[in-house]
Amino acid sequence: MPSKNALYAQSGGPTAVINASACGVLQTARQHPEEINKVYAGRDGIIGALTEDLIDTSIESEAAIAALKHAPGAAFGSCRYKLASINKNRAQYERLIEVFQAHDIGFFFYTGGGDSQDTAYKVSQISAILDYPMVCVGIPKTVDNDLPITDCSPGFGSAAKYLATCLRETAFDLSSVSRTSTKVFALEVMGRNAGWMTAACALAAEQKGDAPHVLLLPEIAFHEGRFLAKVEEAVERYGHCVVAVSEGIKGLDGEFLSAGVKDAFGHAQLGGVAPIVTNLIGDKLRYKCHWAVADYLQRSARHIASETDVQQAYAVGRAAVEFAIAGKNAVMPAIRRLSDSPYRWDIIEAPLSEVANQEKLLPPEFISADGFGITAAARRYLAPLITGEAYPAFKAGLPDYVRLQNVATPKKLGKKFVV
Amino acid sequence: MPSKNALYAQSGGPTAVINASACGVLQTARQHPEEINKVYAGRDGIIGALTEDLIDTSIESEAAIAALKHAPGAAFGSCRYKLASINKNRAQYERLIEVFQAHDIGFFFYTGGGDSQDTAYKVSQISAILDYPMVCVGIPKTVDNDLPITDCSPGFGSAAKYLATCLRETAFDLSSVSRTSTKVFALEVMGRNAGWMTAACALAAEQKGDAPHVLLLPEIAFHEGRFLAKVEEAVERYGHCVVAVSEGIKGLDGEFLSAGVKDAFGHAQLGGVAPIVTNLIGDKLRYKCHWAVADYLQRSARHIASETDVQQAYAVGRAAVEFAIAGKNAVMPAIRRLSDSPYRWDIIEAPLSEVANQEKLLPPEFISADGFGITAAARRYLAPLITGEAYPAFKAGLPDYVRLQNVATPKKLGKKFVV
Repeated sequence: MPSKNALYAQSGGPTAVINASACGVLQTARQHPEEINKVYAGRDGIIGALTEDLIDTSIESEAAIAALKHAPGAAFGSCRYKLASINKNRAQYERLIEVFQAHDIGFFFYTGGGDSQDTAYKVSQISAILDYPMVCVGIPKTVDNDLPITDCSPGFGSAAKYLATCLRETAFDLSSVSRTSTKVFALEVMGRNAGWMTAACALAAEQKGDAPHVLLLPEIAFHEGRFLAKVEEAVERYGHCVVAVSEGIKGLDGEFLSAGVKDAFGHAQLGGVAPIVTNLIGDKLRYKCHWAVADYLQRSARHIASETDVQQAYAVGRAAVEFAIAGKNAVMPAIRRLSDSPYRWDIIEAPLSEVANQEKLLPPEFISADGFGITAAARRYLAPLITGEAYPAFKAGLPDYVRLQNVATPKKLGKKFVV
Repeated sequence: MPSKNALYAQSGGPTAVINASACGVLQTARQHPEEINKVYAGRDGIIGALTEDLIDTSIESEAAIAALKHAPGAAFGSCRYKLASINKNRAQYERLIEVFQAHDIGFFFYTGGGDSQDTAYKVSQISAILDYPMVCVGIPKTVDNDLPITDCSPGFGSAAKYLATCLRETAFDLSSVSRTSTKVFALEVMGRNAGWMTAACALAAEQKGDAPHVLLLPEIAFHEGRFLAKVEEAVERYGHCVVAVSEGIKGLDGEFLSAGVKDAFGHAQLGGVAPIVTNLIGDKLRYKCHWAVADYLQRSARHIASETDVQQAYAVGRAAVEFAIAGKNAVMPAIRRLSDSPYRWDIIEAPLSEVANQEKLLPPEFISADGFGITAAARRYLAPLITGEAYPAFKAGLPDYVRLQNVATPKKLGKKFVV
């Protein structure tokens, strides 16, 4: 097979290590010039492919590519943009094929979560349904950790490390002022329907009685009375109470406690549940409360990334290229756990058809009997994912993150495509 | 003068480096056994002194004391508790003298911000007014950076480094998704009436156009129309807009935009202004927004402490002991800046009478003409305070922070004192 070009793109919310996967893709591709010629990057994900806005990564230096391993954000831009099925919007796929043909693209790599793996899966069908020779490989990424098959999703470990670190620090702060001041602190955590990130906050505790004292997981319906009793018990026993609350908790009626506008995927935009639960505590229990909402800080906190997470993010990027070269279409590299302690893992193939649009929630055996904590099994699962520090370089007191040149390759198609 | 015992106590909100000052006090006192015998620590600040709950620090190992340099929170507990003047509540001061006499205390060290330096100042008057021989030295501390005389307040540099780091990271994230998703991100910052921490967010920007694009400083009255115009301009020019908003911004009517309950010092508890300003943007400009409230995370983020800040916090603790041994009552070690770049500083004496209850706001020459940014002079002032990394030790993926034994020395007084 003669050498083909590749298209790499990033999708959905960035993580602290999504660019480490990009680094894995680009460095590995450069080691295989006989199979992969240039790697283009879609500017802003699949939108770059549709609009023929293709960044020529070959002009980036080896040093710049290596520095991607330490940079937050999505270095080539990301998007929230969902492809319809081939049957429903054939024009989109024909456009993709036009762009692929014009730029001699035979490999497509798409990094993202469940929605984005759906896009990757649809693109992977081009070769079979529209008869265009194309190898499409998904690359797992999401702080939510809700992708199936893979032991964990790259990005999760670093977000978990940031959250558990901040929560441990804040607990030292709170416990030292609670006698005359704040009694309750609540930290709001992302994760939508999946409680993985909220569960990871529990890693902050070293011994019984340590914060967080209450987890509000989205897998468990919020029950006001039981929650308030749990908070009161903690304050009476320890003098203070730390709550980690998922943005995605739902009431007994099944509605999100904090529901706002819808995003481009049609999902409700969540956020603001920490003040809701602390107001409740203030009203009913008369405790002084403080609350924080980490929002994007938790998914971009590259300064406190997990070294394990960085290694896995890089490894799935590298494996994606190796799979592609081996002609494996419609797959995603997945992490397989071989042992908990020491944590050993390798990379296996997951079929995109089984990954797309799946959402892996916290299993019941990871949730404590009262619903407000995690089990020892959950701790065994979570603990290795945050280990190791992978500090970025600092300059003048702040992390020194690379910015790529991101120069587009000249367009070859006359037609514009409006997304 | 025969050797006397000392009392050390922590007050107000902790910082990432308040324990570095404690480390400076305790290590320096141990080097001067001929002047200072034991150092007791008041459990929960001045409350420990009033209730005779005195922690015997002499039983802590050298290693534990050294580890304080890297631990967040207030290791001996803190409080929000204000002493009345000697004329108004003589009984409080007579009680303090009883406790001091019972435990042979001749030195008193109090770490805190403006309110706490007021407490230190009042205690310093005991020797003159109530004729009890006592040397009282204040130790500066506050993330708000609003103490007068001193070049900066220990604790500020680390909070500033955390905020600027997180904001830079989040800006990489936001700019990579803004094409199809969130256009505006707002981070709410502490600081009450003083805009130092909000100003420090501006350090995240490396070049023109970098985030943050808009600062909402408490020194400038919030004007809805001008703010919205500024946000719209940034989104049109850069595709996105990052806002750093102080918890303490006030409307044209002089009222806090977010005002809640009052704390023990009689101050309104602030928080929740980020959702207010982003809701405004969403309503008026129809941009999708995200917001974060860092709250206690910013003052306890020891994992990303500024090495400069740690050094200064330690230095003021050490200097406090040296001042006390020299018999200097009613003073506070203050940092004096000798040059901006390289940053050079030394320690001078500030009279507590000039420190107590003062609030140093951002000077007009540090605020840009439009009120939404900082000047080059502000940048020169701020930049050195966040330099250097002072990572704590990590264990199992998380910072390994010391916990002291905090054993109280036996009470000698029969009487209880209720605070």
